[in-house]
Amino acid sequence: MRRLRLGMVGGGQGAFIGGVHRIASRIDDRWDLVAGALSSTPEKSLESALELGLDPTRSYGDFREMAKAEAARPDGIDAVSIVTPNHMHADPIIVFLEAGIHVICDKPLCSTPSDAEKIKAAVEASDAMFFLTHNYTGYPLIRQARALIAQGGIGEVRVVQAEYAQGWLAKEIEAEGQKQASWRTDPAKSGAGGAIGDIGTHAFNLIEFVTGQQVTALCADLQSFGSGRTLDDNAHIILKMGDVARGMIWASQVAVGCENGLRLRIYGTKGGLEWAQENPNEMVFTQVDAPKQILTRGGPGLPVGSDNWTRIPPGHPEGYLEGFATLYDDIADVIGSGTTDHCVPGIKEGQRGMWFIDAAARSAQQDGIWVGSRNA
Amino acid sequence: MRRLRLGMVGGGQGAFIGGVHRIASRIDDRWDLVAGALSSTPEKSLESALELGLDPTRSYGDFREMAKAEAARPDGIDAVSIVTPNHMHADPIIVFLEAGIHVICDKPLCSTPSDAEKIKAAVEASDAMFFLTHNYTGYPLIRQARALIAQGGIGEVRVVQAEYAQGWLAKEIEAEGQKQASWRTDPAKSGAGGAIGDIGTHAFNLIEFVTGQQVTALCADLQSFGSGRTLDDNAHIILKMGDVARGMIWASQVAVGCENGLRLRIYGTKGGLEWAQENPNEMVFTQVDAPKQILTRGGPGLPVGSDNWTRIPPGHPEGYLEGFATLYDDIADVIGSGTTDHCVPGIKEGQRGMWFIDAAARSAQQDGIWVGSRNA
Amino acid sequence: MRRLRLGMVGGGQGAFIGGVHRIASRIDDRWDLVAGALSSTPEKSLESALELGLDPTRSYGDFREMAKAEAARPDGIDAVSIVTPNHMHADPIIVFLEAGIHVICDKPLCSTPSDAEKIKAAVEASDAMFFLTHNYTGYPLIRQARALIAQGGIGEVRVVQAEYAQGWLAKEIEAEGQKQASWRTDPAKSGAGGAIGDIGTHAFNLIEFVTGQQVTALCADLQSFGSGRTLDDNAHIILKMGDVARGMIWASQVAVGCENGLRLRIYGTKGGLEWAQENPNEMVFTQVDAPKQILTRGGPGLPVGSDNWTRIPPGHPEGYLEGFATLYDDIADVIGSGTTDHCVPGIKEGQRGMWFIDAAARSAQQDGIWVGSRNA
Amino acid sequence: MRRLRLGMVGGGQGAFIGGVHRIASRIDDRWDLVAGALSSTPEKSLESALELGLDPTRSYGDFREMAKAEAARPDGIDAVSIVTPNHMHADPIIVFLEAGIHVICDKPLCSTPSDAEKIKAAVEASDAMFFLTHNYTGYPLIRQARALIAQGGIGEVRVVQAEYAQGWLAKEIEAEGQKQASWRTDPAKSGAGGAIGDIGTHAFNLIEFVTGQQVTALCADLQSFGSGRTLDDNAHIILKMGDVARGMIWASQVAVGCENGLRLRIYGTKGGLEWAQENPNEMVFTQVDAPKQILTRGGPGLPVGSDNWTRIPPGHPEGYLEGFATLYDDIADVIGSGTTDHCVPGIKEGQRGMWFIDAAARSAQQDGIWVGSRNA
Repeated sequence: MRRLRLGMVGGGQGAFIGGVHRIASRIDDRWDLVAGALSSTPEKSLESALELGLDPTRSYGDFREMAKAEAARPDGIDAVSIVTPNHMHADPIIVFLEAGIHVICDKPLCSTPSDAEKIKAAVEASDAMFFLTHNYTGYPLIRQARALIAQGGIGEVRVVQAEYAQGWLAKEIEAEGQKQASWRTDPAKSGAGGAIGDIGTHAFNLIEFVTGQQVTALCADLQSFGSGRTLDDNAHIILKMGDVARGMIWASQVAVGCENGLRLRIYGTKGGLEWAQENPNEMVFTQVDAPKQILTRGGPGLPVGSDNWTRIPPGHPEGYLEGFATLYDDIADVIGSGTTDHCVPGIKEGQRGMWFIDAAARSAQQDGIWVGSRNA
Repeated sequence: MRRLRLGMVGGGQGAFIGGVHRIASRIDDRWDLVAGALSSTPEKSLESALELGLDPTRSYGDFREMAKAEAARPDGIDAVSIVTPNHMHADPIIVFLEAGIHVICDKPLCSTPSDAEKIKAAVEASDAMFFLTHNYTGYPLIRQARALIAQGGIGEVRVVQAEYAQGWLAKEIEAEGQKQASWRTDPAKSGAGGAIGDIGTHAFNLIEFVTGQQVTALCADLQSFGSGRTLDDNAHIILKMGDVARGMIWASQVAVGCENGLRLRIYGTKGGLEWAQENPNEMVFTQVDAPKQILTRGGPGLPVGSDNWTRIPPGHPEGYLEGFATLYDDIADVIGSGTTDHCVPGIKEGQRGMWFIDAAARSAQQDGIWVGSRNA
Repeated sequence: MRRLRLGMVGGGQGAFIGGVHRIASRIDDRWDLVAGALSSTPEKSLESALELGLDPTRSYGDFREMAKAEAARPDGIDAVSIVTPNHMHADPIIVFLEAGIHVICDKPLCSTPSDAEKIKAAVEASDAMFFLTHNYTGYPLIRQARALIAQGGIGEVRVVQAEYAQGWLAKEIEAEGQKQASWRTDPAKSGAGGAIGDIGTHAFNLIEFVTGQQVTALCADLQSFGSGRTLDDNAHIILKMGDVARGMIWASQVAVGCENGLRLRIYGTKGGLEWAQENPNEMVFTQVDAPKQILTRGGPGLPVGSDNWTRIPPGHPEGYLEGFATLYDDIADVIGSGTTDHCVPGIKEGQRGMWFIDAAARSAQQDGIWVGSRNA
Repeated sequence: MRRLRLGMVGGGQGAFIGGVHRIASRIDDRWDLVAGALSSTPEKSLESALELGLDPTRSYGDFREMAKAEAARPDGIDAVSIVTPNHMHADPIIVFLEAGIHVICDKPLCSTPSDAEKIKAAVEASDAMFFLTHNYTGYPLIRQARALIAQGGIGEVRVVQAEYAQGWLAKEIEAEGQKQASWRTDPAKSGAGGAIGDIGTHAFNLIEFVTGQQVTALCADLQSFGSGRTLDDNAHIILKMGDVARGMIWASQVAVGCENGLRLRIYGTKGGLEWAQENPNEMVFTQVDAPKQILTRGGPGLPVGSDNWTRIPPGHPEGYLEGFATLYDDIADVIGSGTTDHCVPGIKEGQRGMWFIDAAARSAQQDGIWVGSRNA
């Protein structure tokens, strides 16, 4: 199977997530990065491109030029990764889809509901595929958890506790010019969601991914603790999921001492699961009236074959990059086979995330009323 | 300082919390149990009394007889512990207070708001003192956390995450006649609160104890997952605390795999604290831009003298019973000195707990509206 | 069953372990402390006795007077606890045994092999019983581990890893007059063992208690890192146990950051066990090709009835004092019933501990030769 | 800086460590794999080469042919990775060094002392460089630990506790034809060391890497628990390090329930460090009379710049592959710059490992005598 050709929009010098996408694409050797519109100007893009060893003729001044040129080449890119800030997702997504080039987009989908609608229309109109890198779905034990629940391993789901706690915005570092903090606290670039968009959407996505159920309504209390902030930096949300299950999401960027504390706990009629992203190679699984079990990545007792979605034996920790890489690996498989039977998030999950941000913001604005889900 | 004389109402054969109170009262050798009305009939009471080595003439047929007789004795009890089910708290509390005997009552205060009012009036009318055994306030690191926050160690409190997760009611064991499950799921005996009354009140009490702030409003979503249950066995609650702080409480008795998962996390402008009851001898303390510290019971770095509220050196774990014993120790001090400058919960905390149960129930009945606190 | 009457030798003001014995004796309400020779002079003894609420006529000037007087009383003590420094164990043990009074002695047995011989002879000559408080054998999960291994739950034992790490002697605090440090680093008071006697004997005892096997030979490397110390403050020891099993012991009092790090790991042909004293309410149990299980005190999956040796439900942590109390509870049972079928350590375990100290010291003096066990 | 060209000897279908080297070489995009002699026959090598997307003209029938051809090409490989079983290390190492091609060799160096001598001579005679992938030295917190100790952060080192516990050989799976188990338990392929060679050398290497001190003598007790095994599957080793420090190594492949339990604890006069490979993103650091600190990869409080040797922010776990990749990254730097001032293990560390295996085997054969180090 040939390596696929990858392009990238965004991800030039000083960016964070672009570098992650590049490493992820390399780990399993299924992709070659061959083209890019990496920065906001042709000059800066070229500088980044040369640094990455790209052919300078495939460093483009902007994404429109890139889509056009690459679509015209016999050896043009198979897919493009969009790793710009949220408010700059919609335009390149649409342009590449129209050019027939598959799109891999960082989450969240975009920054406004109207952009989400346009993207959805473009996806439906295009033969090219759309993938959204909710990377935490690539963690092997998250997929094992999903399989275990689908097999009835914990019975009917009752309670979901999800949290995503960070502390890096406890101080107003955006005022000191910290680049990541600046755009993430700026509604013009991030959209209506601060913490709920940046990290809350991951927690929300994981809940729906792992349980296989949709959130049907939520009520939210959002806070902007940082002085001068208009977007939320902490969120308390209660969830309804179908007729039975209920849940909570806590998302925070002001929880001093927390680094990247994404944690998921799910309890059903027959059992429970607990997983934390910071030590992702183990998961607690308990059945009623039995001792807790520690399931390890690749170890004994997993519901699905233990060699799935993992590269090295148990006890040799894989982490964030490997989970991300599994998405790129899957996307290569999907593109290669054309199958629609896969678990990589796409436009539907993107829209769900946009609903979550919008619903949480609306609920909070109305003092915590329940906001129901159109999609559910 | 002489040992104080203790009486007990409830706590006969088959009971749980009565035995805990007795052990707690013995650990520091400040109390002698000398009288009781331990069960529902004189015969059963006597049987329990003999088993405990009480003088049979001080085993009473009921609590009224006991209060009268003990008040009349020159060597009558100094205090009585009330360890009956919730709906049987009010009457003995009032009778003993009226008899001028100090009362130590297990939480929650009682089962109905009207009982709470009567108890409050009795406390105000009596010279005897009233203590409520919110035992988790006796854990040394909880008191260290309280001192640390009072000293400004984490700055202004922003976010409180409290949870109390158990799994023992995941199945409907009350239908199998399990005694503890039966009265705790019965509104006639427990009052309006299931999980929120039994364990949620502990979480609520800890929040107010440790932060020194009051919850001013809450909105709640309560569930009764167990078939046939009318009281909640799972609760999702969002909190407002004054002008700044916000919080969440998750209380559950259906979280399979959880034993007694009381956990408290508090984040302020300058730092954060994390503590879990199941391993109560350590607490995480983090300051902005500094590594996490693990504070241990009696170890270095504590805000208050490391020999407070603890008996043995760090590394030699103390647990639930020792924390409970510290309350009995404090109560002996308070009775001995007559001071009101102490941190043992009393009528005010009892009323706060009753408000919490009532407010959560009312909020949930009205689909999660915010219910404000009269007391706050 | 009547409460037993307890006396105490040592344990006056400023002592540590005497207070622990007193709390342990009270927790389950099986003992009354009624007599003592608590300090080195009659005056100081009386002061301590009054503080503890003893009848002053039963505060004795020395242990010989006490043994004689108590043996003569119709309500004399049933047993005496010896909680003096190691070099002052032998004399009172022998005197009380000769007086027909049961003896409960803190570990290690004594400070010299010749004292050990004399004690052994006295035990054999007396109808009174002798108990040695290797208190860590009272932890419920340690007893569960012992039962599990006896039942073949991990197959034939292969590897034992025991460690007992403390850091409190990293600095030479004995030079600053710290009382506990002073006698424990003084060969005249502690005998030939520093860390190996004070804590190593606990690790050694646990190994033999839990596996049911004896150590047959050891080779040791002992260090005295603290300036001016003659006794070991760190020990590295390799063990042979019968034909198959092998092990290691690391005991240290200079491991900065360690508080009371007693930890035991045992691996057999079919499974493995891991337990650590600082969080004693859980134990890891693994079987070949199966996930790790977390067994909790009182929780599901235990080899022996989950209500043994524990007072309160799982999730409500018991600790060091409760484990110690279980020994006092057992001793009361043993004295009451006269049975010899019990698991409380006694003279045999005391001698084993003395062999361990002596063998380790001799091995280390000869550059780590193997020293075999006479007793094994 | 151009990407370097990499060749590989071994690592064909069914191999484990070859795949790890390939991923490691890709993560930071400094290497292109362009040539190989991947298997034992030209046909199998070609099959593997095609699978990996290599130019078939650069898939060689054996390593000698490969060294000759690649040395002759203007675009020949810069370095070759040797990932064959231990007994097949020496020949290709020597051949490539003689051809002037840098060598990256998996550990341990080789299988016999005489091979080690030949390799050493070849390294000294060649201008090409030699690197040994003791990959655990690439973990960021291991390098931080090394820096911290070098800066005096824990004072003078006293005690080193290293362990490497696995359980995968608890059963004799080599008898069932498991490929990894077969060669690792075969002295003809592994040399004199079983567990001590396969994993003990890693622990030994880490000790010397992190402390900056050499082990000067050891005494060892080796066991072959598995039926029919001639090589050790469990090892208990005591260490002397210079005039002061002492240590222990436990290496096991029969510790049921352990996956890849490499753990290092080091205590000095002023502080202590604890690190475990299975959760490599945090390290405990304690100073005398201060609380434990949890240092995280990339987090606050690290002795060296927090952006060293790591790709993504704290809380986003990196693991085994990233640590391995850091070695490939460093090697690219070293080759590019020609510097000798780096911390990648090389021939010296390879010889130290061979000494460790030989000394442990000799000590064990003579019932645990101390064996001193020639090199130290």
